[in-house]
Amino acid sequence: MTSREASVPMPRTARRGRPGYDLDSLLAVAVEVFNERGYDATSMGDLSERLGIAKSAIYHHVASKEVLLRLALDRALDGLEAVTQGARELDVSAVRRLEHLVHESVVLLLDHQPYVTLLLRVRGNSPVELAALQRRRALDRYAASLVRDAVRAGDLRADLDPTVTARLMFGLVNSLVEWTRPASRAHTQALPDEVSALVFDGLRVRDRPR
Amino acid sequence: MTSREASVPMPRTARRGRPGYDLDSLLAVAVEVFNERGYDATSMGDLSERLGIAKSAIYHHVASKEVLLRLALDRALDGLEAVTQGARELDVSAVRRLEHLVHESVVLLLDHQPYVTLLLRVRGNSPVELAALQRRRALDRYAASLVRDAVRAGDLRADLDPTVTARLMFGLVNSLVEWTRPASRAHTQALPDEVSALVFDGLRVRDRPR
Repeated sequence: MTSREASVPMPRTARRGRPGYDLDSLLAVAVEVFNERGYDATSMGDLSERLGIAKSAIYHHVASKEVLLRLALDRALDGLEAVTQGARELDVSAVRRLEHLVHESVVLLLDHQPYVTLLLRVRGNSPVELAALQRRRALDRYAASLVRDAVRAGDLRADLDPTVTARLMFGLVNSLVEWTRPASRAHTQALPDEVSALVFDGLRVRDRPR
Repeated sequence: MTSREASVPMPRTARRGRPGYDLDSLLAVAVEVFNERGYDATSMGDLSERLGIAKSAIYHHVASKEVLLRLALDRALDGLEAVTQGARELDVSAVRRLEHLVHESVVLLLDHQPYVTLLLRVRGNSPVELAALQRRRALDRYAASLVRDAVRAGDLRADLDPTVTARLMFGLVNSLVEWTRPASRAHTQALPDEVSALVFDGLRVRDRPR
Protein backbone atom coordinates (compact mmCIF):
# COMPACT_ATOMS: atom_id res chain seq x y z
CA MET A 1 0.00 0.00 0.00
CA THR A 2 1.52 3.36 -1.03
CA SER A 3 1.12 6.43 1.11
CA ARG A 4 -1.44 7.95 -1.40
CA GLU A 5 -3.70 4.98 -0.85
CA ALA A 6 -3.55 5.20 2.91
CA SER A 7 -6.88 5.90 4.53
CA VAL A 8 -5.32 8.38 6.93
CA PRO A 9 -6.54 11.85 5.77
CA MET A 10 -3.96 14.38 4.62
CA PRO A 11 -3.47 17.12 7.19
CA ARG A 12 -5.23 20.33 6.10
CA THR A 13 -1.98 22.23 6.18
CA ALA A 14 -0.46 20.11 3.38
CA ARG A 15 -0.64 22.64 0.53
CA ARG A 16 1.82 21.18 -1.96
CA GLY A 17 1.60 22.67 -5.44
CA ARG A 18 -0.73 25.52 -4.51
CA PRO A 19 1.51 28.54 -4.08
CA GLY A 20 -0.64 31.38 -2.83
CA TYR A 21 -4.05 30.11 -3.98
CA ASP A 22 -6.99 29.20 -1.86
CA LEU A 23 -10.26 28.28 -3.54
CA ASP A 24 -11.40 31.91 -3.48
CA SER A 25 -8.41 33.44 -5.23
CA LEU A 26 -8.25 30.54 -7.68
CA LEU A 27 -11.91 31.12 -8.55
CA ALA A 28 -11.28 34.84 -9.09
CA VAL A 29 -8.57 34.13 -11.66
CA ALA A 30 -10.64 31.42 -13.36
CA VAL A 31 -13.59 33.82 -13.75
CA GLU A 32 -11.26 36.42 -15.27
CA VAL A 33 -10.04 33.91 -17.86
CA PHE A 34 -13.58 32.63 -18.57
CA ASN A 35 -14.73 36.21 -19.25
CA GLU A 36 -11.75 36.93 -21.51
CA ARG A 37 -11.84 33.77 -23.64
CA GLY A 38 -15.31 32.42 -23.11
CA TYR A 39 -15.99 29.51 -20.77
CA ASP A 40 -16.27 26.87 -23.50
CA ALA A 41 -13.01 27.98 -25.14
CA THR A 42 -11.07 27.85 -21.85
CA SER A 43 -9.26 24.60 -21.01
CA MET A 44 -7.89 23.49 -17.64
CA GLY A 45 -4.51 23.89 -19.36
CA ASP A 46 -5.28 27.59 -19.99
CA LEU A 47 -6.19 28.01 -16.31
CA SER A 48 -3.07 26.20 -15.18
CA GLU A 49 -0.96 28.49 -17.37
CA ARG A 50 -2.58 31.69 -16.10
CA LEU A 51 -2.44 30.56 -12.47
CA GLY A 52 1.15 29.39 -12.81
CA ILE A 53 0.38 26.10 -11.07
CA ALA A 54 0.07 22.51 -12.31
CA LYS A 55 -3.29 21.17 -13.44
CA SER A 56 -3.08 18.62 -10.61
CA ALA A 57 -2.94 21.54 -8.17
CA ILE A 58 -6.22 22.88 -9.60
CA TYR A 59 -7.79 19.44 -9.28
CA HIS A 60 -6.77 19.51 -5.65
CA HIS A 61 -9.38 22.28 -5.22
CA VAL A 62 -12.09 21.30 -7.71
CA ALA A 63 -13.02 18.14 -9.57
CA SER A 64 -13.57 19.87 -12.93
CA LYS A 65 -13.82 23.13 -14.88
CA GLU A 66 -17.59 22.86 -14.50
CA VAL A 67 -17.29 23.02 -10.70
CA LEU A 68 -15.47 26.34 -11.08
CA LEU A 69 -18.30 27.57 -13.29
CA ARG A 70 -20.91 26.45 -10.78
CA LEU A 71 -19.13 28.11 -7.86
CA ALA A 72 -18.77 31.35 -9.85
CA LEU A 73 -22.40 31.39 -10.98
CA ASP A 74 -23.52 30.57 -7.42
CA ARG A 75 -21.66 33.61 -6.16
CA ALA A 76 -23.50 35.92 -8.57
CA LEU A 77 -26.87 34.23 -8.07
CA ASP A 78 -26.60 34.05 -4.26
CA GLY A 79 -25.94 37.80 -4.28
CA LEU A 80 -28.85 38.59 -6.59
CA GLU A 81 -31.17 36.36 -4.59
CA ALA A 82 -30.15 38.12 -1.39
CA VAL A 83 -30.99 41.47 -3.03
CA THR A 84 -34.36 40.09 -4.09
CA GLN A 85 -35.00 38.71 -0.63
CA GLY A 86 -34.18 42.13 0.80
CA ALA A 87 -36.82 43.68 -1.47
CA ARG A 88 -39.40 41.05 -0.45
CA GLU A 89 -38.86 41.74 3.23
CA LEU A 90 -39.38 45.49 2.99
CA ASP A 91 -42.72 46.63 4.34
CA VAL A 92 -43.32 49.14 1.53
CA SER A 93 -45.24 49.54 -1.75
CA ALA A 94 -44.35 47.58 -4.91
CA VAL A 95 -42.75 50.60 -6.55
CA ARG A 96 -40.49 51.12 -3.52
CA ARG A 97 -39.52 47.45 -3.56
CA LEU A 98 -38.69 47.83 -7.23
CA GLU A 99 -36.57 50.92 -6.56
CA HIS A 100 -34.70 48.94 -3.92
CA LEU A 101 -34.22 46.04 -6.35
CA VAL A 102 -32.82 48.25 -9.13
CA HIS A 103 -30.56 50.25 -6.84
CA GLU A 104 -29.15 47.25 -4.96
CA SER A 105 -28.74 45.21 -8.15
CA VAL A 106 -26.45 47.93 -9.49
CA VAL A 107 -24.50 47.96 -6.20
CA LEU A 108 -24.12 44.18 -6.35
CA LEU A 109 -23.14 44.22 -10.02
CA LEU A 110 -20.41 46.77 -9.37
CA ASP A 111 -19.14 44.83 -6.33
CA HIS A 112 -19.08 41.44 -8.05
CA GLN A 113 -18.75 42.50 -11.65
CA PRO A 114 -16.71 39.54 -13.02
CA TYR A 115 -19.12 37.01 -11.50
CA VAL A 116 -22.22 38.81 -12.79
CA THR A 117 -20.60 39.23 -16.22
CA LEU A 118 -20.05 35.47 -16.39
CA LEU A 119 -23.65 34.83 -15.33
CA LEU A 120 -25.01 37.15 -18.03
CA ARG A 121 -23.10 35.27 -20.74
CA VAL A 122 -24.46 31.86 -19.80
CA ARG A 123 -26.47 30.38 -22.67
CA GLY A 124 -27.61 27.04 -21.24
CA ASN A 125 -25.01 24.73 -22.82
CA SER A 126 -24.85 22.34 -19.84
CA PRO A 127 -26.87 21.28 -16.76
CA VAL A 128 -24.92 23.79 -14.63
CA GLU A 129 -25.78 26.60 -17.07
CA LEU A 130 -29.41 25.50 -17.33
CA ALA A 131 -29.75 25.52 -13.54
CA ALA A 132 -28.28 29.04 -13.44
CA LEU A 133 -30.69 30.23 -16.14
CA GLN A 134 -33.57 28.80 -14.15
CA ARG A 135 -32.53 30.74 -11.04
CA ARG A 136 -32.13 33.92 -13.16
CA ARG A 137 -35.61 33.45 -14.57
CA ALA A 138 -37.12 33.23 -11.08
CA LEU A 139 -35.54 36.61 -10.30
CA ASP A 140 -36.90 38.06 -13.56
CA ARG A 141 -40.37 36.78 -12.74
CA TYR A 142 -40.30 38.47 -9.33
CA ALA A 143 -39.21 41.77 -10.92
CA ALA A 144 -41.99 41.52 -13.51
CA SER A 145 -44.54 40.83 -10.75
CA LEU A 146 -43.39 43.96 -8.90
CA VAL A 147 -43.81 46.03 -12.09
CA ARG A 148 -47.32 44.65 -12.52
CA ASP A 149 -48.21 45.41 -8.89
CA ALA A 150 -46.79 48.93 -9.16
CA VAL A 151 -48.77 49.57 -12.35
CA ARG A 152 -51.92 48.27 -10.67
CA ALA A 153 -51.28 50.59 -7.72
CA GLY A 154 -51.08 53.50 -10.15
CA ASP A 155 -47.43 54.27 -9.36
CA LEU A 156 -45.97 53.18 -12.72
CA ARG A 157 -47.33 54.03 -16.15
CA ALA A 158 -49.83 51.56 -17.53
CA ASP A 159 -49.09 52.13 -21.22
CA LEU A 160 -46.02 49.85 -21.26
CA ASP A 161 -46.10 46.08 -21.12
CA PRO A 162 -44.96 44.99 -17.60
CA THR A 163 -42.82 42.07 -18.80
CA VAL A 164 -41.12 44.24 -21.41
CA THR A 165 -40.65 47.00 -18.85
CA ALA A 166 -38.99 44.61 -16.38
CA ARG A 167 -36.68 43.36 -19.13
CA LEU A 168 -35.74 46.86 -20.23
CA MET A 169 -35.11 47.88 -16.64
CA PHE A 170 -32.73 45.00 -15.96
CA GLY A 171 -31.33 45.17 -19.49
CA LEU A 172 -30.17 48.64 -18.52
CA VAL A 173 -28.78 47.44 -15.18
CA ASN A 174 -27.00 44.50 -16.82
CA SER A 175 -25.55 46.66 -19.60
CA LEU A 176 -23.25 48.16 -16.97
CA VAL A 177 -21.02 45.09 -17.13
CA GLU A 178 -20.12 46.08 -20.71
CA TRP A 179 -18.50 49.41 -19.93
CA THR A 180 -17.83 49.92 -16.23
CA ARG A 181 -14.39 48.82 -15.11
CA PRO A 182 -13.73 47.76 -11.52
CA ALA A 183 -10.64 50.02 -11.68
CA SER A 184 -12.74 53.13 -12.28
CA ARG A 185 -14.67 52.63 -9.05
CA ALA A 186 -14.54 56.34 -8.18
CA HIS A 187 -16.53 57.13 -11.32
CA THR A 188 -19.13 54.48 -10.63
CA GLN A 189 -20.07 55.55 -7.10
CA ALA A 190 -23.02 57.57 -8.36
CA LEU A 191 -24.22 54.85 -10.74
CA PRO A 192 -26.87 53.19 -8.55
CA ASP A 193 -28.59 56.56 -8.14
CA GLU A 194 -28.11 57.51 -11.82
CA VAL A 195 -29.63 54.27 -13.04
CA SER A 196 -32.58 54.65 -10.66
CA ALA A 197 -33.09 58.24 -11.79
CA LEU A 198 -33.13 57.25 -15.45
CA VAL A 199 -35.44 54.27 -14.96
CA PHE A 200 -38.03 55.87 -12.70
CA ASP A 201 -37.94 59.53 -13.61
CA GLY A 202 -36.47 59.61 -17.11
CA LEU A 203 -34.08 62.17 -18.52
CA ARG A 204 -36.47 64.89 -19.56
CA VAL A 205 -36.78 67.95 -17.37
CA ARG A 206 -40.24 67.70 -15.88
CA ASP A 207 -41.57 71.11 -15.07
CA ARG A 208 -40.68 72.60 -18.45
CA PRO A 209 -43.43 73.29 -20.96
CA ARG A 210 -42.80 71.16 -24.08
CA MET B 1 0.32 27.07 -68.19
CA THR B 2 -2.75 25.47 -66.51
CA SER B 3 -6.22 26.86 -66.99
CA ARG B 4 -6.24 28.33 -63.42
CA GLU B 5 -3.25 30.46 -64.31
CA ALA B 6 -4.81 31.74 -67.55
CA SER B 7 -5.41 35.48 -67.55
CA VAL B 8 -8.86 35.07 -69.11
CA PRO B 9 -11.38 35.91 -66.36
CA MET B 10 -13.93 33.29 -65.32
CA PRO B 11 -17.40 34.08 -66.61
CA ARG B 12 -19.65 35.46 -63.85
CA THR B 13 -22.14 32.68 -64.34
CA ALA B 14 -19.63 29.99 -63.35
CA ARG B 15 -20.96 29.14 -59.88
CA ARG B 16 -19.49 25.71 -59.29
CA GLY B 17 -19.61 24.54 -55.70
CA ARG B 18 -21.93 27.28 -54.41
CA PRO B 19 -25.38 25.70 -54.23
CA GLY B 20 -27.82 28.44 -53.36
CA TYR B 21 -25.43 30.94 -51.75
CA ASP B 22 -24.64 34.39 -52.89
CA LEU B 23 -22.37 36.57 -50.73
CA ASP B 24 -25.39 37.94 -48.83
CA SER B 25 -26.90 34.64 -47.76
CA LEU B 26 -23.45 33.21 -47.01
CA LEU B 27 -22.77 36.20 -44.77
CA ALA B 28 -26.07 35.75 -42.95
CA VAL B 29 -25.21 32.14 -42.05
CA ALA B 30 -21.65 33.08 -41.05
CA VAL B 31 -22.93 35.78 -38.68
CA GLU B 32 -25.33 33.27 -37.13
CA VAL B 33 -22.45 30.87 -36.44
CA PHE B 34 -20.16 33.65 -35.16
CA ASN B 35 -22.85 34.71 -32.67
CA GLU B 36 -23.46 31.14 -31.51
CA ARG B 37 -19.84 30.04 -31.03
CA GLY B 38 -17.92 33.29 -30.85
CA TYR B 39 -15.95 34.63 -33.82
CA ASP B 40 -12.55 33.48 -32.54
CA ALA B 41 -13.79 29.97 -31.83
CA THR B 42 -15.33 29.58 -35.32
CA SER B 43 -13.16 28.01 -38.03
CA MET B 44 -13.70 28.09 -41.78
CA GLY B 45 -14.29 24.35 -41.35
CA ASP B 46 -17.21 25.11 -38.98
CA LEU B 47 -18.67 27.50 -41.55
CA SER B 48 -18.22 25.00 -44.37
CA GLU B 49 -20.05 22.38 -42.29
CA ARG B 50 -22.97 24.67 -41.43
CA LEU B 51 -23.26 25.96 -44.99
CA GLY B 52 -22.99 22.46 -46.45
CA ILE B 53 -20.44 23.59 -49.03
CA ALA B 54 -16.69 23.04 -49.41
CA LYS B 55 -14.24 25.48 -47.86
CA SER B 56 -12.99 26.25 -51.38
CA ALA B 57 -16.51 27.41 -52.25
CA ILE B 58 -16.39 29.89 -49.34
CA TYR B 59 -12.99 31.14 -50.51
CA HIS B 60 -14.60 31.76 -53.90
CA HIS B 61 -16.60 34.54 -52.17
CA VAL B 62 -14.16 35.85 -49.56
CA ALA B 63 -10.42 35.63 -49.02
CA SER B 64 -10.65 34.87 -45.29
CA LYS B 65 -12.83 34.57 -42.21
CA GLU B 66 -11.78 38.10 -41.31
CA VAL B 67 -13.33 39.45 -44.52
CA LEU B 68 -16.65 37.94 -43.44
CA LEU B 69 -16.27 39.67 -40.08
CA ARG B 70 -15.47 43.00 -41.75
CA LEU B 71 -18.45 42.75 -44.10
CA ALA B 72 -20.77 41.87 -41.20
CA LEU B 73 -19.50 44.69 -38.97
CA ASP B 74 -19.73 47.12 -41.90
CA ARG B 75 -23.37 46.24 -42.32
CA ALA B 76 -24.14 47.09 -38.68
CA LEU B 77 -21.96 50.20 -38.63
CA ASP B 78 -23.20 51.55 -41.99
CA GLY B 79 -26.73 51.28 -40.61
CA LEU B 80 -25.91 52.99 -37.32
CA GLU B 81 -24.00 55.73 -39.12
CA ALA B 82 -26.98 56.31 -41.41
CA VAL B 83 -29.20 56.67 -38.33
CA THR B 84 -26.74 59.16 -36.84
CA GLN B 85 -26.53 61.07 -40.12
CA GLY B 86 -30.33 61.23 -40.15
CA ALA B 87 -30.26 62.79 -36.67
CA ARG B 88 -27.59 65.31 -37.72
CA GLU B 89 -29.65 66.45 -40.69
CA LEU B 90 -32.82 67.14 -38.71
CA ASP B 91 -33.47 70.84 -38.20
CA VAL B 92 -34.60 70.42 -34.57
CA SER B 93 -33.32 70.78 -31.00
CA ALA B 94 -30.66 68.48 -29.51
CA VAL B 95 -33.22 66.62 -27.41
CA ARG B 96 -35.32 65.91 -30.50
CA ARG B 97 -32.24 64.68 -32.37
CA LEU B 98 -31.52 62.42 -29.42
CA GLU B 99 -35.05 61.06 -29.41
CA HIS B 100 -34.68 60.32 -33.13
CA LEU B 101 -31.33 58.61 -32.49
CA VAL B 102 -32.69 56.36 -29.71
CA HIS B 103 -35.88 55.46 -31.56
CA GLU B 104 -34.20 54.71 -34.89
CA SER B 105 -31.33 52.82 -33.25
CA VAL B 106 -33.90 50.43 -31.78
CA VAL B 107 -35.57 50.07 -35.18
CA LEU B 108 -32.20 49.32 -36.80
CA LEU B 109 -31.20 46.89 -34.06
CA LEU B 110 -34.42 44.92 -34.48
CA ASP B 111 -34.06 44.89 -38.28
CA HIS B 112 -30.40 43.81 -38.31
CA GLN B 113 -30.17 42.08 -34.95
CA PRO B 114 -27.54 39.41 -35.78
CA TYR B 115 -25.19 42.01 -37.28
CA VAL B 116 -25.57 44.42 -34.36
CA THR B 117 -25.15 41.54 -31.88
CA LEU B 118 -21.84 40.65 -33.53
CA LEU B 119 -20.74 44.28 -33.42
CA LEU B 120 -21.53 44.58 -29.72
CA ARG B 121 -19.37 41.55 -28.91
CA VAL B 122 -16.28 42.88 -30.68
CA ARG B 123 -13.43 43.35 -28.20
CA GLY B 124 -10.63 44.68 -30.42
CA ASN B 125 -8.66 41.46 -30.99
CA SER B 126 -7.59 42.36 -34.58
CA PRO B 127 -7.21 45.39 -36.86
CA VAL B 128 -10.71 44.75 -38.27
CA GLU B 129 -12.17 44.75 -34.75
CA LEU B 130 -10.18 47.82 -33.72
CA ALA B 131 -11.45 49.73 -36.77
CA ALA B 132 -15.02 48.75 -35.87
CA LEU B 133 -14.53 49.88 -32.26
CA GLN B 134 -13.21 53.22 -33.52
CA ARG B 135 -16.33 53.74 -35.65
CA ARG B 136 -18.53 52.78 -32.67
CA ARG B 137 -16.73 55.28 -30.48
CA ALA B 138 -17.39 58.09 -32.97
CA LEU B 139 -21.12 57.28 -32.73
CA ASP B 140 -20.92 57.27 -28.91
CA ARG B 141 -19.18 60.64 -28.94
CA TYR B 142 -21.92 62.15 -31.08
CA ALA B 143 -24.61 60.78 -28.76
CA ALA B 144 -22.77 62.18 -25.70
CA SER B 145 -22.49 65.59 -27.42
CA LEU B 146 -26.24 65.61 -28.03
CA VAL B 147 -26.88 64.82 -24.36
CA ARG B 148 -24.59 67.69 -23.34
CA ASP B 149 -26.34 70.09 -25.74
CA ALA B 150 -29.77 69.01 -24.52
CA VAL B 151 -28.72 69.51 -20.89
CA ARG B 152 -27.35 72.95 -21.75
CA ALA B 153 -30.63 73.81 -23.47
CA GLY B 154 -32.45 72.87 -20.26
CA ASP B 155 -34.34 69.98 -21.87
CA LEU B 156 -32.56 67.15 -20.05
CA ARG B 157 -31.78 67.00 -16.34
CA ALA B 158 -28.43 68.46 -15.35
CA ASP B 159 -27.83 66.30 -12.27
CA LEU B 160 -26.55 63.29 -14.28
CA ASP B 161 -23.16 63.10 -15.97
CA PRO B 162 -23.73 63.44 -19.77
CA THR B 163 -21.20 60.75 -20.75
CA VAL B 164 -22.66 58.30 -18.24
CA THR B 165 -26.17 59.22 -19.38
CA ALA B 166 -25.30 58.55 -23.04
CA ARG B 167 -23.79 55.19 -22.07
CA LEU B 168 -26.80 54.18 -19.98
CA MET B 169 -29.14 55.23 -22.79
CA PHE B 170 -27.39 53.11 -25.41
CA GLY B 171 -26.65 50.38 -22.86
CA LEU B 172 -30.41 50.04 -22.62
CA VAL B 173 -30.85 50.08 -26.41
CA ASN B 174 -28.07 47.53 -26.90
CA SER B 175 -29.40 45.24 -24.17
CA LEU B 176 -32.26 44.41 -26.54
CA VAL B 177 -29.99 42.04 -28.47
CA GLU B 178 -29.85 39.82 -25.39
CA TRP B 179 -33.51 38.97 -25.19
CA THR B 180 -35.46 39.97 -28.30
CA ARG B 181 -35.71 37.23 -30.89
CA PRO B 182 -36.18 38.05 -34.59
CA ALA B 183 -38.93 35.39 -34.58
CA SER B 184 -41.02 37.30 -32.05
CA ARG B 185 -41.22 40.37 -34.26
CA ALA B 186 -44.89 40.95 -33.48
CA HIS B 187 -44.01 41.49 -29.81
CA THR B 188 -41.21 43.91 -30.61
CA GLN B 189 -43.19 46.34 -32.77
CA ALA B 190 -43.84 48.66 -29.84
CA LEU B 191 -40.25 48.50 -28.57
CA PRO B 192 -38.84 51.66 -30.18
CA ASP B 193 -41.60 53.68 -28.50
CA GLU B 194 -41.28 51.80 -25.20
CA VAL B 195 -37.53 52.36 -25.01
CA SER B 196 -37.97 56.06 -25.82
CA ALA B 197 -40.69 56.37 -23.17
CA LEU B 198 -38.50 54.78 -20.51
CA VAL B 199 -35.40 56.82 -21.37
CA PHE B 200 -36.98 60.23 -21.70
CA ASP B 201 -39.98 60.08 -19.41
CA GLY B 202 -39.19 57.28 -16.97
CA LEU B 203 -41.63 54.77 -15.55
CA ARG B 204 -43.11 56.72 -12.68
CA VAL B 205 -46.55 58.19 -13.11
CA ARG B 206 -45.93 61.91 -13.26
CA ASP B 207 -48.97 63.78 -11.99
CA ARG B 208 -49.32 61.67 -8.87
CA PRO B 209 -48.30 63.15 -5.52
CA ARG B 210 -45.44 61.04 -4.08
